Amino acid sequence: MTASFTFTLHKTDGMARRGAFVTPHGQVQTPAFMPVGTAGTVKGLKPEDVRATNSEIVLGNTYHLMLRPGPERVAALGGLHTFMNWPLPILTDSGGFQVMSLASLRKLTEQAVTFRSHLDGTMFELSPERAIEIQALLGADISMQLDECLRLPAPRAEMQRAMELSLRWAERSRRAFEARAREGYALFGIVQGGDDMALRTASARGLVDIGFEGYAIGGLAVGEPQEVMLKVVEETTPALPPERPRYLMGVGTPHDILEAVARGIDMFDCVMPTRNGRHGMAFTRFGQINLSNARHASDPRSLDEESPHPAARSYSRAYLHHLVKANEILGAVLLSTINIAYYQALMAGMREAIEQVRFEAFRTDSLAGWEQGDIAAL
Amino acid sequence: MTASFTFTLHKTDGMARRGAFVTPHGQVQTPAFMPVGTAGTVKGLKPEDVRATNSEIVLGNTYHLMLRPGPERVAALGGLHTFMNWPLPILTDSGGFQVMSLASLRKLTEQAVTFRSHLDGTMFELSPERAIEIQALLGADISMQLDECLRLPAPRAEMQRAMELSLRWAERSRRAFEARAREGYALFGIVQGGDDMALRTASARGLVDIGFEGYAIGGLAVGEPQEVMLKVVEETTPALPPERPRYLMGVGTPHDILEAVARGIDMFDCVMPTRNGRHGMAFTRFGQINLSNARHASDPRSLDEESPHPAARSYSRAYLHHLVKANEILGAVLLSTINIAYYQALMAGMREAIEQVRFEAFRTDSLAGWEQGDIAAL
Repeated sequence: MTASFTFTLHKTDGMARRGAFVTPHGQVQTPAFMPVGTAGTVKGLKPEDVRATNSEIVLGNTYHLMLRPGPERVAALGGLHTFMNWPLPILTDSGGFQVMSLASLRKLTEQAVTFRSHLDGTMFELSPERAIEIQALLGADISMQLDECLRLPAPRAEMQRAMELSLRWAERSRRAFEARAREGYALFGIVQGGDDMALRTASARGLVDIGFEGYAIGGLAVGEPQEVMLKVVEETTPALPPERPRYLMGVGTPHDILEAVARGIDMFDCVMPTRNGRHGMAFTRFGQINLSNARHASDPRSLDEESPHPAARSYSRAYLHHLVKANEILGAVLLSTINIAYYQALMAGMREAIEQVRFEAFRTDSLAGWEQGDIAAL
Repeated sequence: MTASFTFTLHKTDGMARRGAFVTPHGQVQTPAFMPVGTAGTVKGLKPEDVRATNSEIVLGNTYHLMLRPGPERVAALGGLHTFMNWPLPILTDSGGFQVMSLASLRKLTEQAVTFRSHLDGTMFELSPERAIEIQALLGADISMQLDECLRLPAPRAEMQRAMELSLRWAERSRRAFEARAREGYALFGIVQGGDDMALRTASARGLVDIGFEGYAIGGLAVGEPQEVMLKVVEETTPALPPERPRYLMGVGTPHDILEAVARGIDMFDCVMPTRNGRHGMAFTRFGQINLSNARHASDPRSLDEESPHPAARSYSRAYLHHLVKANEILGAVLLSTINIAYYQALMAGMREAIEQVRFEAFRTDSLAGWEQGDIAAL
């Protein structure tokens, strides 16, 4: 295990945790939200604009970058940080999510998963070892093991098979990662097991036996109700070592994140702030606001006069409505920015609340704010 | 004529002119390039990003804003400056260009042009008086008279009819504008007459007799060869009063602009930097670069290491190529920014050259730079 990837737990409040981890490209305060930069760009945002949302780390996608422009090319161009002009930490996923989402385009064996490119039909083989190699070529501060992610609900036998395969792949990923001895870089294992707690616990124990710099909970937010997701989180985190960061992959809404922090999660990523932003939705303290709705057409108010981010204060709802209706790029750009900034303000609020041991009050206030907006929207 | 719209001619070098004009929202150095903000946004750029390209004035479109969100709504929201969060000067066109470009959707009479909205089929009547009213509702620092723009080549009788109609509309526009007595705001007349110099001269004389704060040359860059356009410019500018700014509408490439400044033009607007940027083209000191071309895929060089704008220095051609191929919003955003910044650097270079009476040398150097890139691209 490399020495200088460190996670420090500053404070706990119930199960909620306030900490920080250090990577070769800098420190990240937790609970942390990572905007998704699928293809080497957080869609629509310049790196300095991502930074201005108070983001400290972004996520890149192994599958997408493997297809285009290719990890060897990115490495020749100085790695992903240089390529996308983002000097701060990067976590890369492993392609495991695409094993699920691109099920019709891939073939799975014990050895590897083979993808037919959704771009041009080219075949790509992704083994646990190749996933580690790609992430090293990209220069990811935090790499993820290759795993098999299932859509829920799924038969128990399937969940068990996928979990056990993921565990064997975790072992191979770890060996491949250690062979590279990248000082200060981290590899996270991924807990699988669907919605079956016995499988989840077995997965967590198996991963802890192998030993990772951090532990992710994968295979959630894949079709199950929120209460199932939160139950799995709540019952999995106690099986993870407290001195390591915990990452809930692909989650979620502000409410999902709040509840998952309450259950001991430290890290999140989700496309929702950017994807919903491109579709005219704003995340705010007052809940989600659909700016394409005609009731905003003449509304001179900004989205949130008290937002820490100028974009949420500087443009009227009427203007944002106009941009969305006119399908203007700037609508997608501003709403993506505003949404990431809101997610980061939420994370900062949670961090401060945990430090001051008033997380429950923060949670109650946040829920009340979102509900207030939902009522106003009726 | 309102008193405080002032144009000051600082220096001439041959026919090239260095000056500045003052509007209610600030001063603009000439020769000036105005990025096009058709529907209340320079496509893909935040206002602060437009400002960072060194732009001092943007253009808005009467036709587009009339259809959506509507000038009365913009006025109720505080005017176009407030609506789009752009505190600097704005010039609005009159809809005359759409009389040409949307010929199949409009009906023209002596009184007005009636458009069928390209969005939803609603009918809109645009008279010279309504065009002035709309531009006043938008709060444009510089309004344009309604005119009839023709595509070239056109029969002489048609060019004469359209020019004479435009002149009668100029008179009506002037009366409507003066009735509003907007202190410091300006109305420009538009010279028409196609490629016929007798008609152009008659148009210019007619407009000067009415009297405007500035004079535009319209009906060019509408299908004619560059040499025809430049000949019309060269022979029209002497018929315009030297103490008023001269605006060549809808032009053009960097080369067009350079040659038009050499013939006494002070102001330009064009969609080319943003439209071509959205299609993967970069304007640089080395000519146009098509970033979708595979030869850029592994090129670590920036577009221009000496550009005054960071976006032209901070991203490799390989990264821009990747964004363009992946159809990422950020490609459109960065290339639009880089292109406007290049246009503004060209304008700044011309302004400085005229001040130092070395415009000819600047012209020769610019042409050589563009040609060098064109050769490298072979």
